[in-house]
Amino acid sequence: MSDIRTAVRDAKRASLELAAAGTAEKDMALAAMAEALDAGREAILAANADDMAAAEAEGLEGPMLKRLSVTDEKIDGMIAGIRDVAALKDPVGQTMSAKELDEGLVLYQISCPIGMIGVIFESRPDVVPQIMSLCLKSGNGVVFKGGREAVRTNRALFGILRDAAMGHVPADAFVMAETRDDVDALLDLDDCIDLLIPRGSNAFVRHIKESTRIPVLGHAAGICHVYVDGHADPAKAERVVFDSKVQYPAVCNAMETLLVHRDAAGSFLPVIAARFAEAGVEMRCDPESMPLMPGSVPASEEDWDTEYGDLTVSVHVVGSVGEAAAFINEHGSHHTDAIVTEDRSAAASFVSSVDSADVFVNASTRFADGYRFGKGAEVGISTNKIHSRGPVGMEGLMIYKYVLIGEGNIVADYAGKGARRFTHRDLDRELDL
Amino acid sequence: MSDIRTAVRDAKRASLELAAAGTAEKDMALAAMAEALDAGREAILAANADDMAAAEAEGLEGPMLKRLSVTDEKIDGMIAGIRDVAALKDPVGQTMSAKELDEGLVLYQISCPIGMIGVIFESRPDVVPQIMSLCLKSGNGVVFKGGREAVRTNRALFGILRDAAMGHVPADAFVMAETRDDVDALLDLDDCIDLLIPRGSNAFVRHIKESTRIPVLGHAAGICHVYVDGHADPAKAERVVFDSKVQYPAVCNAMETLLVHRDAAGSFLPVIAARFAEAGVEMRCDPESMPLMPGSVPASEEDWDTEYGDLTVSVHVVGSVGEAAAFINEHGSHHTDAIVTEDRSAAASFVSSVDSADVFVNASTRFADGYRFGKGAEVGISTNKIHSRGPVGMEGLMIYKYVLIGEGNIVADYAGKGARRFTHRDLDRELDL
Repeated sequence: MSDIRTAVRDAKRASLELAAAGTAEKDMALAAMAEALDAGREAILAANADDMAAAEAEGLEGPMLKRLSVTDEKIDGMIAGIRDVAALKDPVGQTMSAKELDEGLVLYQISCPIGMIGVIFESRPDVVPQIMSLCLKSGNGVVFKGGREAVRTNRALFGILRDAAMGHVPADAFVMAETRDDVDALLDLDDCIDLLIPRGSNAFVRHIKESTRIPVLGHAAGICHVYVDGHADPAKAERVVFDSKVQYPAVCNAMETLLVHRDAAGSFLPVIAARFAEAGVEMRCDPESMPLMPGSVPASEEDWDTEYGDLTVSVHVVGSVGEAAAFINEHGSHHTDAIVTEDRSAAASFVSSVDSADVFVNASTRFADGYRFGKGAEVGISTNKIHSRGPVGMEGLMIYKYVLIGEGNIVADYAGKGARRFTHRDLDRELDL
Repeated sequence: MSDIRTAVRDAKRASLELAAAGTAEKDMALAAMAEALDAGREAILAANADDMAAAEAEGLEGPMLKRLSVTDEKIDGMIAGIRDVAALKDPVGQTMSAKELDEGLVLYQISCPIGMIGVIFESRPDVVPQIMSLCLKSGNGVVFKGGREAVRTNRALFGILRDAAMGHVPADAFVMAETRDDVDALLDLDDCIDLLIPRGSNAFVRHIKESTRIPVLGHAAGICHVYVDGHADPAKAERVVFDSKVQYPAVCNAMETLLVHRDAAGSFLPVIAARFAEAGVEMRCDPESMPLMPGSVPASEEDWDTEYGDLTVSVHVVGSVGEAAAFINEHGSHHTDAIVTEDRSAAASFVSSVDSADVFVNASTRFADGYRFGKGAEVGISTNKIHSRGPVGMEGLMIYKYVLIGEGNIVADYAGKGARRFTHRDLDRELDL
């Protein structure tokens, strides 16, 4: 549709003004947004009731309905989230480095917003206040496209937030797309949208990644491993392995495959098998581990590449930390993998060899999360190899520009006979204009 | 071809070993590469003579032939370049941040290589030693594909360098592709190649960007502006504008369009027009500037979006710094743009409003360059909005992983009643395993 294209182009222009907005204006906009959500509860709950009724009529199921539902308590959470973002330090205009190139010629590397962010998400309407507040504070424009089933709720939330921001910042930088055709238009707008953030199922994220040339920040799978080394402390191994699998198996940072060193298999596997059996975990084993895990079934080749997302685990015995790392690099999703060991050199080898965003030593894979990492607010978890990796906070919405401040300096002075030489001296100085 | 796919997959595996290689081994490999180039001059010059003869027979022209040609002096430059890279600090394994999550649970952000880099370049064979040494030092694998006309030279250089590295690091991480079909195969290998670096003409880079889902680091155009503000120092304006256009007009960081504030136009434009006329610069003017620049011709709408790459300039009069920034954001290529002004608030507004990798105050656009920025060795210049922007050194080949070191910590302890609380305390500490 040409409508959404025009709206995104206008938003792109407005986002350049938003990039130059001051901290005070942005914080006032965030405060107004929090207040407006509080004052607008009735309209939000009414819109959500309509969405819920339509969804139930269409036969939507339990967990999807639960994600779609907005309650007074959830609105409280949204308001608190916006106030948390307002309290974060303004990430725009920070001096990342300063270097004297020559007397009177100083180069600064200054943080700035990426520009225009596209957010395509499934039912959860709390994505709207969360990402909109993060984008506003970081000076980025954003175009949202939510799921069809939440269209009334998203529209109500977005309208309230945008209107509240309008008096303080160029809120034309925020757009809500609503139709299915709009998604195709967004995926095609690689000259306007600088970064796409898909939020939803693995299949959904994979589809987005395969359908656009815009850089995508996210992860399409979470096949995480715990490797119990030959020099593991048995009590730590039991705690970490059990927590990684059982504490919340539906999420991307839960363990799918357990690797065990041959030297530890005989003592460790029967113990963890009993814990797993008690918790109702299905164990799919390679031939070496199977006799050590009562109640297990044989694993197939497919199991090593499967994200179960439930109480199922695959188990494989290896002969060395190198073999474990190679197995993880081949079958994992470069998300989060852990080693349990008391041997520092095994830990060092695992850390340098495993090609994953999060590599943990003697800690549960479940710690891979923006909140637990202390990021305040999470944009998402990325398995990308450029820009941002692992749990991503507001820093993932930033890039930098190089600002060179001179006194009329020209390159001709640094060329040919008698050329001036660059000093290239690092400075401890902030850009102050 | 399945050959190159297999070779790149093998290289990807080897690159994971290279990622874990120590600084000493990598520096020994670089020293051996420099020595081998010195010892292999005869073979390199002979291969190049064959390429040159074939190119001349096919009617290749002056500048292309010059770029293809390898001389003893150019080999000296390649050797010096490799030794410069060896002298750079090892960028792998640096602690970027450290945070205590709880007593005995510390999160480190550690720099690591991106993985597998693809380099597709036109005739210049010195790309091979330059990028191969940068990738080796930063622990990245690399697959090269050079131009057909340089195939013998590239093969000779690559063979010598790879053989020299082999004794010290897993040099299977380095691959040279040779056929046209190989290019399509590389562009398609988005599961193996993490980043593509095209080196060549604008049209070539644009073609690569449009033909792959792999992230591309580079720039397809360099439409740079100088804006002479109403509060510009006339002498600085003349120096900066003349240097930006005339010092080396063929390159991406030369000025294409001159913007002048209405208040300065009457005094400044006649002066710079005389300098331009003397230097043989063709001036294409908007209606307001044309009467002020003797010898100029009218500009068309197309001129504002054109990278001339020669002694041509387009000239446009604006009414404010905001209008200048909006013009630059609409017509520029987000590469490098400069303001000349003595007014700090105009400079601040320009710096925060112009959405370009390099934004300069009272300095020539021609300073936008990795060497002048003091980066030592340049990977390229990027107009991307994520990861790396502007002149990119070895830091553009790096990403990070999060390393969490615990004592058997589990997430269950931080959930439910009596949950432990995270401390999230920043630490000044290096990862030491």
